[in-house]
Amino acid sequence: MQDQDTSPVTDDEIFGGHEGGKLSVAAARPISRPRDLSIAYTPGVAKVSRAIAEQASLAQRYTWADRLVVVVSDGTAVLGLGDIGASASLPVMEGKSVLFKTFGGLDSIPLVLDTTDVDEIVETLVRLRPSYGAVNLEDISAPRCFELEDKLKQVLDCPVMHDDQHGTAIVTLAALRGANLVLGRDIADQRVVISGAGAAGVACARILQEAGIGDVTLLDSKGIIHRGRAGLNPIKEQLAASTNAAGLQGGLAEALRGADVFLGLSGSTIEAELLGEMAEDPIVFALSNPDPEVHPDDAAKHAAIVATGRSDFPNQINNVLAFPGVFRGALDAGARAITEGMKLAAAEAIVAVAQDDLGPDRIVPSPLDPRVAPEVAAAVAKAAVEDGVAG
Amino acid sequence: MQDQDTSPVTDDEIFGGHEGGKLSVAAARPISRPRDLSIAYTPGVAKVSRAIAEQASLAQRYTWADRLVVVVSDGTAVLGLGDIGASASLPVMEGKSVLFKTFGGLDSIPLVLDTTDVDEIVETLVRLRPSYGAVNLEDISAPRCFELEDKLKQVLDCPVMHDDQHGTAIVTLAALRGANLVLGRDIADQRVVISGAGAAGVACARILQEAGIGDVTLLDSKGIIHRGRAGLNPIKEQLAASTNAAGLQGGLAEALRGADVFLGLSGSTIEAELLGEMAEDPIVFALSNPDPEVHPDDAAKHAAIVATGRSDFPNQINNVLAFPGVFRGALDAGARAITEGMKLAAAEAIVAVAQDDLGPDRIVPSPLDPRVAPEVAAAVAKAAVEDGVAG
Repeated sequence: MQDQDTSPVTDDEIFGGHEGGKLSVAAARPISRPRDLSIAYTPGVAKVSRAIAEQASLAQRYTWADRLVVVVSDGTAVLGLGDIGASASLPVMEGKSVLFKTFGGLDSIPLVLDTTDVDEIVETLVRLRPSYGAVNLEDISAPRCFELEDKLKQVLDCPVMHDDQHGTAIVTLAALRGANLVLGRDIADQRVVISGAGAAGVACARILQEAGIGDVTLLDSKGIIHRGRAGLNPIKEQLAASTNAAGLQGGLAEALRGADVFLGLSGSTIEAELLGEMAEDPIVFALSNPDPEVHPDDAAKHAAIVATGRSDFPNQINNVLAFPGVFRGALDAGARAITEGMKLAAAEAIVAVAQDDLGPDRIVPSPLDPRVAPEVAAAVAKAAVEDGVAG
Repeated sequence: MQDQDTSPVTDDEIFGGHEGGKLSVAAARPISRPRDLSIAYTPGVAKVSRAIAEQASLAQRYTWADRLVVVVSDGTAVLGLGDIGASASLPVMEGKSVLFKTFGGLDSIPLVLDTTDVDEIVETLVRLRPSYGAVNLEDISAPRCFELEDKLKQVLDCPVMHDDQHGTAIVTLAALRGANLVLGRDIADQRVVISGAGAAGVACARILQEAGIGDVTLLDSKGIIHRGRAGLNPIKEQLAASTNAAGLQGGLAEALRGADVFLGLSGSTIEAELLGEMAEDPIVFALSNPDPEVHPDDAAKHAAIVATGRSDFPNQINNVLAFPGVFRGALDAGARAITEGMKLAAAEAIVAVAQDDLGPDRIVPSPLDPRVAPEVAAAVAKAAVEDGVAG
């Protein structure tokens, strides 16, 4: 399904669509008679509270917390805007909560934090633990985001996922599988170059390795990441050890020469001519938003398949294909964590939905395809059981 | 309006009314076309975030935070149940959020905290400040609740109110004014005895003094609070100095002798015969929930006017008459705080709604009277302007 009206969205439409915020809270049942008040509030509610005090697991049944996803950000890496602070990040987080509800059927609230200290964010979410069922981290700058997610996973007994990392990685893997199915290639044989070693780039490298792609090379703003490069942080040190088997050095030109896949997650632009140095009929995913690394029309002159993050071109690679179903599946399974197996299962489920009508301009389902989230949820819940983290 | 069906609410009704929790989040606008996604999420939302980053006050217009009330509890003093913990308190907090929406038209979410440390609660709410517009504290034990509210008011630039204190105080003052109007008495002449010196008792004593009642005496579990009593905490020290002008000592019998008003906020029961020692035709508010200090039928043998917190007897004194309108008015005015003047104005507005058909069995409006919250909100907003705290 492509958009019927592909004219650019106007400022009036955008600001009008955010007037008063994008979320509201609703009562599950109306309060119209005194009796309703006696049930939902005093004196009736006391029995429910007493029951939970006596048997803690009843909170899952009689409160909303167990299925509530908190969308958490400190506003340090918002879209292409960078560190704009918590308050300015809130429209993005509200949007995310809207998408959780629309596609995953999950209640979700944004919690934006006026601190960028990793330990303070962890401490805050630990204190709030009885209030929610899962944590979606969003738009938190690298490398802090890796440390934050790791620490939260250690201390919280619930699903935690930094979507900029893993949502992007899941959907990118799904799209790469779809593109290879279209082209009749084996994903394991591909040489992939990832431009950008922030949250998304690092997570994509890892999931591609887990999916069996042996040859992945990353670049950051200083060029190719390789063993022995001076000044690497611990995350990049680790990547240098496990990627770039050929030991390439230099910049994008050196990395792309003969490569099968370009994966742009850098927030910068590249010369389309560089794509001409890749292997024959390469795959180009230019995923930076709102401006792709290379215009899709220019990329198409060199590549067999082109994808972007934009809704106004074919092959939109959008995290909304992943996160609603991933969290829904994890919460349905009562999962205590989101495992690598659950992420891989999510990517497979996305490919499976598109499988029957794949094509060069349709390597993933539409972000609005209503089949995706339920299929992803079912696959993720199953993987949670297999991985031994289900409740 | 009294309930048509006054049979006791059954456990099935109660637990059925809490199944899956009592709240849900809704999208203000549907996401059904790719265009909707481009407006509410990427790329459109980036323009809204950038606008807020450049002009912080736009967050009021383009996010939900400015009108969002967080209902905050640590679960230490829940209804009549005591310290049952955060998770077990959540059904009460969800109920409160439902009432904010139903009566005040305000979005509200519960935040229950797995800490009882006052400074940690303050710190948590400071970090979350960009996420919400006002704080309703709920079911937090005394005397910690006084310290917590004071500290929050110092550090937060938004409305903060501990409803167990001030909601109760506002509604009690309104009811006492209503009762005195019915009986043709001057509120200033009344001698009031308050049984219970917890959150509600202390706040009621203070608002009655502010409203011009000169003679207030409080009792705690050890009897009458008077100057020179050993072992008083700082809050009770302060009360001992400003109340009990006659220097009464002893227990409830000594306090009630000749008193005009009994205000029960103790959670314990009393002998109805003690009411016979009060002045002629006294006023008796037995507000403990779910069991009043004295059965209203027994109290009626001695008193001219009887009120309770129950929906199955006349004169239900319920905080829902106050808090939705108080917060709505404060937020409508962009108030940075909730002042004493705003609380007194709320009480006057509640009385005004009931004024035209007051009677011994109708000293306050019904908790479901839809006129109350808008009238309270208007009065509170006006008082916010008068008190110089409006935005």
